[in-house]
Amino acid sequence: MNPSSIRGALAPVVCPFASDLRPDAARLIRHCRWLLENDTGLAVFGTNSEGNSLSVPEKIALLDALVDAGIPAHRMMPGTGCCALPDTVELTRHAMRHGCAGVLMLPPFYYKGVSDDGLFASYSEVIERVGDARLRIYLYHIPQVSQVPLGLALIERLLARYPGTIAGVKDSSGDFDNTRAMLERFQPRGFDVFSGSESFLLATLRAGGAGCISAIANVNPAPIARLVREWQASDADAQQAALDRVRAVYQSLPMLPALKATIAQFSRDDAWTAVRPPLVALAPSQRTQLRDALHALGFAMPGLTARDAAPGA
Amino acid sequence: MNPSSIRGALAPVVCPFASDLRPDAARLIRHCRWLLENDTGLAVFGTNSEGNSLSVPEKIALLDALVDAGIPAHRMMPGTGCCALPDTVELTRHAMRHGCAGVLMLPPFYYKGVSDDGLFASYSEVIERVGDARLRIYLYHIPQVSQVPLGLALIERLLARYPGTIAGVKDSSGDFDNTRAMLERFQPRGFDVFSGSESFLLATLRAGGAGCISAIANVNPAPIARLVREWQASDADAQQAALDRVRAVYQSLPMLPALKATIAQFSRDDAWTAVRPPLVALAPSQRTQLRDALHALGFAMPGLTARDAAPGA
Repeated sequence: MNPSSIRGALAPVVCPFASDLRPDAARLIRHCRWLLENDTGLAVFGTNSEGNSLSVPEKIALLDALVDAGIPAHRMMPGTGCCALPDTVELTRHAMRHGCAGVLMLPPFYYKGVSDDGLFASYSEVIERVGDARLRIYLYHIPQVSQVPLGLALIERLLARYPGTIAGVKDSSGDFDNTRAMLERFQPRGFDVFSGSESFLLATLRAGGAGCISAIANVNPAPIARLVREWQASDADAQQAALDRVRAVYQSLPMLPALKATIAQFSRDDAWTAVRPPLVALAPSQRTQLRDALHALGFAMPGLTARDAAPGA
Repeated sequence: MNPSSIRGALAPVVCPFASDLRPDAARLIRHCRWLLENDTGLAVFGTNSEGNSLSVPEKIALLDALVDAGIPAHRMMPGTGCCALPDTVELTRHAMRHGCAGVLMLPPFYYKGVSDDGLFASYSEVIERVGDARLRIYLYHIPQVSQVPLGLALIERLLARYPGTIAGVKDSSGDFDNTRAMLERFQPRGFDVFSGSESFLLATLRAGGAGCISAIANVNPAPIARLVREWQASDADAQQAALDRVRAVYQSLPMLPALKATIAQFSRDDAWTAVRPPLVALAPSQRTQLRDALHALGFAMPGLTARDAAPGA
């Protein structure tokens, strides 16, 4: 493990939109600050950030705005993997220029059933073109969405060819047997394995993993980050169980719109509910269901800045 | 049917790359000219064009280069559907600016399991933002690749809301029952149904459809275009059978690299074999297999310009 590398709890930061669906940098900055205050790193432009619903110029402008606002780049792991090689190269270069801790890189995800040779060539071309020894790539394995899995043999091959640069993985497969295999095979070689969900956080940490990059960290960051710090504590299993209870609320709803609805609720700022198509905001009945379920758990988002309290960025 | 609309045989025009993987406009222009000489329209930036492996600026530059070279826009149906709304809007506007016959529009394809409401909103936002009554959208149904199917209920809804603008579909599902349902339900209302493969060309034309947009039209355009003209001739079934024999050669190989290898072979221009990752060029043994199988059929690409004969664009 590189001691300076980014570990622990990260959120794929949800991206707020204005009513015309333009990205809302001011609200994004506010949310990033709140996550950092809660010891949570920033995996901006991930799946639950609607990262692939943003154009390359939009992502570049948002990253610039975050850095300009003083959000520390060493706490950011932007998603940069696109379908088109030049897009991935451009975004990755831009993240490097800002000194981001690393990048979370989907494989090109339009073509399905592609070979390991093709996927190796995809990552290899990006690495060679970016040509920067500081580059840290976290592979993004989310087969149920990308439909392009990153198997162990491919990771082995990338790690052998680009040690140091191939820095880790986010395993969002939901299959802990797969995460465990990655932990056993690659973590001892300094390859950081992040669970894609906090439901596997304790198991990942006990097996020597790096942490989790979890959508729910957008709304429940402090308890997730606490378990990262206290995974050896006697109440660790109870902490995990408490995380699981919050997560269960979201699993009966469309995850991303539900996260935005929760932020809207606790910041008293309905603008947060906007999503870009093809996603759809929660229906009023779903918002009621969500609100009631969170209330029953005594859930809160302490310290979240309400719009009225902080009208600017 | 709009009498001026684009119909018949179209090719998702394969995109040549230089050795550094930059798009090669000169070779693309040459190939487009040859396709037009063979009565085949140009569905540039489709799946078999590696359209989603090209960045938005690359697609804009290529479209400009084609128009500048005198390729008629009214014979073009560029693919413009991207994951990010602003990208789809920008490419569609650009195609309109050039007077393209229409655009072939994938739904946003990153998120899976999205609702018809979300897909309707996706197309609707593009149509409203482009805001041009001349816009003709051909929906692109290719569920095995996009993993985002466009069902009959969605098409019905789009057609009711945007008659004229929602101009047709390319059905690449490979499921002729689905194509037949589209033909029966929508073709009588002026919605042009294209088969995504020439293997269903005769069946599509007999059911009143518009034609096909087929990868194989990149190498076998004249016989496909001939069947479009002669589908009522007595030898139509024999023509279809001959098309099927050529297609069968490609179905045991990775389609797109095999098409490029065939163009390389008949133009004596090996540069044509380059593909962008995650696709992989054919192995030498596959090229031999392909060459032998085509030779056994007496296959040729008459009139294809060899590099030596026409070094420039």
